[in-house]
Amino acid sequence: MTLGSAPLRLAPTRDDVLVMKFGGTSVGDAERIERVARHVMAAKMKGFKVCVTVSAMSGETNKLVGLTETLGGGDVSRDADYDAVVASGEQVTAGLLALHLKSKGVPARSFQGWQLGLETDESHGAAKITNIPEDKLLASLDAGEVAVVAGFQGIAPNNRISTLGRGGSDTTAVALAAALGAVRCDIYTDVDGVYTTDPRIVSTATRRKALSYEEMLEMASVGAKVLQTRSVGLGMAYGVPIRVLSSLGEPEDTDEGTLITAEEDIMEQEVVTAVIPSTGEAKISLLGVPDKPGRSALIFQLLADAGVNIDMIVQSPARAGSEANMSFTLSERDLSLAMEKLTLAKAELGYDDLVANQNVAKVSVIGIGMKTHTGVAAKTFEVLADRQINIENISTSEIKISVLIAAEYTELAVRALHEAFGLSTAKA
Amino acid sequence: MTLGSAPLRLAPTRDDVLVMKFGGTSVGDAERIERVARHVMAAKMKGFKVCVTVSAMSGETNKLVGLTETLGGGDVSRDADYDAVVASGEQVTAGLLALHLKSKGVPARSFQGWQLGLETDESHGAAKITNIPEDKLLASLDAGEVAVVAGFQGIAPNNRISTLGRGGSDTTAVALAAALGAVRCDIYTDVDGVYTTDPRIVSTATRRKALSYEEMLEMASVGAKVLQTRSVGLGMAYGVPIRVLSSLGEPEDTDEGTLITAEEDIMEQEVVTAVIPSTGEAKISLLGVPDKPGRSALIFQLLADAGVNIDMIVQSPARAGSEANMSFTLSERDLSLAMEKLTLAKAELGYDDLVANQNVAKVSVIGIGMKTHTGVAAKTFEVLADRQINIENISTSEIKISVLIAAEYTELAVRALHEAFGLSTAKA
Repeated sequence: MTLGSAPLRLAPTRDDVLVMKFGGTSVGDAERIERVARHVMAAKMKGFKVCVTVSAMSGETNKLVGLTETLGGGDVSRDADYDAVVASGEQVTAGLLALHLKSKGVPARSFQGWQLGLETDESHGAAKITNIPEDKLLASLDAGEVAVVAGFQGIAPNNRISTLGRGGSDTTAVALAAALGAVRCDIYTDVDGVYTTDPRIVSTATRRKALSYEEMLEMASVGAKVLQTRSVGLGMAYGVPIRVLSSLGEPEDTDEGTLITAEEDIMEQEVVTAVIPSTGEAKISLLGVPDKPGRSALIFQLLADAGVNIDMIVQSPARAGSEANMSFTLSERDLSLAMEKLTLAKAELGYDDLVANQNVAKVSVIGIGMKTHTGVAAKTFEVLADRQINIENISTSEIKISVLIAAEYTELAVRALHEAFGLSTAKA
Repeated sequence: MTLGSAPLRLAPTRDDVLVMKFGGTSVGDAERIERVARHVMAAKMKGFKVCVTVSAMSGETNKLVGLTETLGGGDVSRDADYDAVVASGEQVTAGLLALHLKSKGVPARSFQGWQLGLETDESHGAAKITNIPEDKLLASLDAGEVAVVAGFQGIAPNNRISTLGRGGSDTTAVALAAALGAVRCDIYTDVDGVYTTDPRIVSTATRRKALSYEEMLEMASVGAKVLQTRSVGLGMAYGVPIRVLSSLGEPEDTDEGTLITAEEDIMEQEVVTAVIPSTGEAKISLLGVPDKPGRSALIFQLLADAGVNIDMIVQSPARAGSEANMSFTLSERDLSLAMEKLTLAKAELGYDDLVANQNVAKVSVIGIGMKTHTGVAAKTFEVLADRQINIENISTSEIKISVLIAAEYTELAVRALHEAFGLSTAKA
């Protein structure tokens, strides 16, 4: 199967093939790998041909990355030799899981990315999958084996090992499911599904039974760390249903988690499905920017060149008609770099004053139903106004409204919105 | 180049190509890998094109093997998935060294065994190299790169990663040198060369400047753990000079170590070049074995079937002409297994009594000059007799005399022989 610009669902659906993915925490030690094997055996017992993909044991990748930085003299994550080093963690886990399955009488074998011919582009450290030939995997599955694939890695056109970047094993899993035409891709992780909000903030948060790809993408982009964004996009592109469920219990105690699938496959659609807080945000305001054509382009090009992603831009007229105030949000991580670049370019940009604010948070209201239901924005503003919470910036998409507020009001805002949109009672 | 039954020195000698090998202790942490890079750069400065091969960081392989045993339910070292797991350690070190060289401005790249097409047979966990295509390595060297090869591994005919067994990186190094026609293979280790005896026993032990392959093989087989036996045999078969030297100092402080080469290339040959003690031996005596044809074959077949290697067999007539006493040595590790097998077969073998003795040690006198000089055996026996040391068993080869003595006399015997053969004064 060729990924990228290929038509959807090139592979015929194989109802008896299941892809399962286990992340770093789920394979963190020998005991956990044994439990992973029990999950795999349970799926086999249900009649599935199982392809499993695994991450490195938790902590391993960080250790290896640390060594590359020490010895490479800094960040060398774009180097092919970096990939050779960090890809080893998944190779180990895949081999260990295959060995354990065999010790339990279940035929199994491990595959490294290069053995499958799992091709990527040459962007070492952040490669994109370009092709997964399914022949070797299907041969292994048809021979009754569990095919255990080292996640996160492939082979680049230069015949070197490539890696897909952080969280890349999710992408491997969904891409394998697409290539195999698997009935579903089950992502086992350390949470038991996707919630209406952060349960640490709102005790009445409920787990969603189902979510659309679009909703999951919006949730991921505003900070819900359950699934890697790219994997959800891939699932959407190829129509692979993705299930998020917990690896922390035994198979018989594990409930069904959250299914992420196409909008039309979700029976009961809610207008709003989640309220997601996102901290780690910062805001920069430029005061008294000359209101001339091309001035904003100049500012944002400067930041883009420095690798700074920005979000939630607001421009408003300042005192004089010829000047404007401009503010935008960015990741707290990038704040000092952005401030430095903007300060150096003060003369060129011609603004009067530059103000940074780290005491901000973004709260997002998400729901596929917003496509057809109006009034969500109005209700959001009303709920926040009732609590005297000032909205500093706003951004919206077809299925999301995000507001920037003072960080100290985050919990209050999330609880109020979660309650107002009826998310505190258990629903589909 | 094809190894195995191929003619010697198939590859043309390339006087500007040097292979360097660094073992697990030498790459045990980031600082040591940095020092390895300085050794490599020093060789580059001398004008060599350098191919380096590395082991896993010390402790890593043991950790990985431990995980395979825990999860595989015992020893799974013949499983292809075992190889996928344990080969990862060398992959990491090779990548890290390449990254560090590049950070110092030295072009470099790592190669895994499969990337080179370093072919082996399908004996997973103890594979033999069958072919090393030199094209990719030569292209890398000719492009000015240091080619850093993950040691200990190759690719089997089934397209799975294979490993060469413990100490396999020495074999990788010598095989690479043979394939490349390298001028020499430098093995960096945690000792600074090969000594006339164990310096912990004899303070006047001196480092040999040169040794023949045959001498090194005999020394390895009786317990000198400097080089893996297979690598010395490969060096002999392909005429690759091997130098053993220390990786523990800076390049400028590292002296020339010991050169292992063909007998005819050693200028000043000694009659005796080393006296090697070997502990960890045990002796089994079978008393009153019926002296019938085929009886010894029966005994030794029984032990061979159990995987027990035996050595130094002595058979002597017992009281009656129809019975014999038989004794042999074996590794202390195998003693209980051998005793169990022999006890179970008592009726079949028909011996009267079975005696085990762990308080024995083997001392070997080694020297290529013994091929042409007589009198070494006589002198050995005389020296030991003078010290009242009883010789229990004797075995000899063309260039070696080994005697089995009571373990408590080991140091005394080694010191006396070392002195008697004139090894205590510095020589070539």
